[in-house]
Amino acid sequence: MMNFIVQKNLKFKIQHLKFQTMFKKILIANRGEIALRIIRTCKEMGIKTVAVYSTADAESLHVKFADEAVCIGPPPSNLSYLKMSNIIAAAEITNADAIHPGYGFLSENAKFSKICHEHNIKFIGASPEMIDRMGDKASAKSTMIEAGVPCVPGSVGILESYEQAESLAAEFGYPVMLKATAGGGGKGMRAVWKQEDLLKAWEGARQESAAAFGNDGMYLEKLIEEPRHIEIQIVGDSFGKACHLSERDCSVQRRHQKLTEETPSPFMTDELREKMGLAAVKAAEYIKYEGAGTVEFLVDKHRNFYFMEMNTRIQVEHPITEQVIDYDLIREQIMVAAGIPISGKNYLPQLHAIECRINAEDPYNDFRPSPGKITVLHSPGGHGVRLDTHVYAGYTIPPNYDSMIAKLITTAQTRQEAINKMKRALDEFVIEGIKTTIPFHRQLMDDERYVAGDYTTAFMDTFVMKEPR
Amino acid sequence: MMNFIVQKNLKFKIQHLKFQTMFKKILIANRGEIALRIIRTCKEMGIKTVAVYSTADAESLHVKFADEAVCIGPPPSNLSYLKMSNIIAAAEITNADAIHPGYGFLSENAKFSKICHEHNIKFIGASPEMIDRMGDKASAKSTMIEAGVPCVPGSVGILESYEQAESLAAEFGYPVMLKATAGGGGKGMRAVWKQEDLLKAWEGARQESAAAFGNDGMYLEKLIEEPRHIEIQIVGDSFGKACHLSERDCSVQRRHQKLTEETPSPFMTDELREKMGLAAVKAAEYIKYEGAGTVEFLVDKHRNFYFMEMNTRIQVEHPITEQVIDYDLIREQIMVAAGIPISGKNYLPQLHAIECRINAEDPYNDFRPSPGKITVLHSPGGHGVRLDTHVYAGYTIPPNYDSMIAKLITTAQTRQEAINKMKRALDEFVIEGIKTTIPFHRQLMDDERYVAGDYTTAFMDTFVMKEPR
Repeated sequence: MMNFIVQKNLKFKIQHLKFQTMFKKILIANRGEIALRIIRTCKEMGIKTVAVYSTADAESLHVKFADEAVCIGPPPSNLSYLKMSNIIAAAEITNADAIHPGYGFLSENAKFSKICHEHNIKFIGASPEMIDRMGDKASAKSTMIEAGVPCVPGSVGILESYEQAESLAAEFGYPVMLKATAGGGGKGMRAVWKQEDLLKAWEGARQESAAAFGNDGMYLEKLIEEPRHIEIQIVGDSFGKACHLSERDCSVQRRHQKLTEETPSPFMTDELREKMGLAAVKAAEYIKYEGAGTVEFLVDKHRNFYFMEMNTRIQVEHPITEQVIDYDLIREQIMVAAGIPISGKNYLPQLHAIECRINAEDPYNDFRPSPGKITVLHSPGGHGVRLDTHVYAGYTIPPNYDSMIAKLITTAQTRQEAINKMKRALDEFVIEGIKTTIPFHRQLMDDERYVAGDYTTAFMDTFVMKEPR
Repeated sequence: MMNFIVQKNLKFKIQHLKFQTMFKKILIANRGEIALRIIRTCKEMGIKTVAVYSTADAESLHVKFADEAVCIGPPPSNLSYLKMSNIIAAAEITNADAIHPGYGFLSENAKFSKICHEHNIKFIGASPEMIDRMGDKASAKSTMIEAGVPCVPGSVGILESYEQAESLAAEFGYPVMLKATAGGGGKGMRAVWKQEDLLKAWEGARQESAAAFGNDGMYLEKLIEEPRHIEIQIVGDSFGKACHLSERDCSVQRRHQKLTEETPSPFMTDELREKMGLAAVKAAEYIKYEGAGTVEFLVDKHRNFYFMEMNTRIQVEHPITEQVIDYDLIREQIMVAAGIPISGKNYLPQLHAIECRINAEDPYNDFRPSPGKITVLHSPGGHGVRLDTHVYAGYTIPPNYDSMIAKLITTAQTRQEAINKMKRALDEFVIEGIKTTIPFHRQLMDDERYVAGDYTTAFMDTFVMKEPR
């Protein structure tokens, strides 16, 4: 538990870097809890921080807690958090020598990574080439096949025609899945259970993808029925070495949005972890991946696993990994970006951690967003409880962004204890003025199937909220 | 890290206890953060809780978060939290089968322990005999000498006369310390640096002790100059076995009140930890100690250590131990009280943890108490931050009790990282409406001597607050 991933014994190297190439000031090109998360680690490392914010976010904690803050425009995001020129200008004005993009927004934007490089600002994330290679689903998959990582049987590259889709579907056998090559968050995605439905799905998915991403490229895969979504956290350094930090089970999803995550996965075995960890490290080393990344897999009921996608950025759910290995992943991203090598040792979970994403949504009303002013906020605390949030009493949640307002994480010796701790922490958590998903998570923690660890990505299809207690 | 102190492999025994003798309902005979701390663990263990409260504490979180709450009288404490008959009545009315006394109040009161036993209510603490034996400083010391634990050279038992004090002081050599046998919190205590001052000190200390404790018994010890206060956490079970959970350094004190604690001690060596741990376990096993306890030592600059006193209860600063060994000490107290044996394995710190006691006091005005209404409260959070508090925005701190309102704990891989984390957590902590010691701790974390780990119990004598930043 006392080892860093970044090697401790390279005293000279670190000393050297400390005075020469460790970043002096990092601009955080993001908002909300992840912006605050990154600011916290920078403060702890003695690195100055620059927050950027839209006019809708002027009152957010990430603005208050940074050393400097620059307004980069109004909502929506294409006028501010996605506006590369404004962000680069903010970095230049403030003399930031690196940019941390967080997750979402520009975190997996190859052009932005390239522009940072051109402006001599270190992008704390993947290179443009890596983002291009892994960000496009079809190209990611062909790369993983080359690396020898198991993939779901499917089309190689973008489908050339509807006829090709039809022929491949017949080859793999139904059900199959049509997916937008530029997709994400469930957009441009269709499950097809029989041939007569394929044409309609093909047309619908392409239209949706064109509208959402300006790209209607599609690929087709065999559909893994009721799979588990289990991802492996990896870290790679600039010397071509990678290690894994075990798994996170993210199967509890609603419309492809993760609701809660845990590590270890209740479905995991030591043997499967070793295999999946090895595959993820192989993938990372094959592409010479630098930084923190996540290799997402689907795992079927026979414990076969298939590469799904790779996220070349920090994940929302990274804290559960930090909790079970006593370790700061944002720090690791910064260290690796500064050129410090990792030890290459893999990390196994020593404890059990669960994260509940607290969203400003009404779980009794189809999870409808519930922005507005938080009138009362009382945070849970005590042994084994971690809370990551950018909101506070008196803060008004703007309607412009995603609805996640907090991540509540509990850590304990066993899964059942982590569940029990989560229940009491949720019971202590008071948020008034808006609706939140706290009641959903509280009911989830009492759900028999959840408690038994018996869930797949289809779990939420049959989960029904009980009346308020 | 995955082992409990309580043995895991005794499945039958625990199963058996679960249905037969694990407590169904625990009354918490305390207030404030420790009452809430105990309620949290009970909830996580599935044990019902009863809060008791004075009329001054009706709005405290420990009352809101317990399953039941019983008002036991008005302040001051002798009419409520010290009123044994009311507490026993509350336990009987609510059918509580155990009482957890927390720290302070009745936690080391032999009579209360006995009365609980007579009412067939399990006292989660030491037996009356143990409290008598270890609660009286003179008797504790003679017991430790019997057990072979190093003690400060001093009088054996209560001094019979001033003449005896004078003769012993001459024997040990000045400086010496006069201490009230019933003392605590610095009352009835005098350091004497030369013979001509002894008589005045003798008279003053006796008068003070008589007034504070109704007992003017005194003892005399060689004064260890500028010692460190380092204590060893121990746990003993009902089978005569004990283990230690390493040390806490509590040397940063003001008028004998601890302000901040850390583990490991920056002064500790592996060799000294082994010796002190062994001595503490020897002490616990010699007296067949049951439950969680703390053996406090003075450590001189040559790393000689001397038994100071034993606390037969949970300590305020117990969370730092929990943080570095991933472990719930309140749970352990309950398990041992239910008759479950411990493994006997000693635990070494795997991480570094620091606790800052946040008091409602004005550090710019001689730490004068500052009760009143909290108008704004924002809790720090994120990686490695734990907060234990019973207060919230809108809560009025009553003037009747001690001024501690929160314990802020940070945990990291190294001491410097824990300090850096504490700085950023203190910077995030917003409490308005009252004065707090947050600015003191923030300055302490920047103090050169503190950062170097170079402090003794005399540290605060020369610490001066800088002007507000």
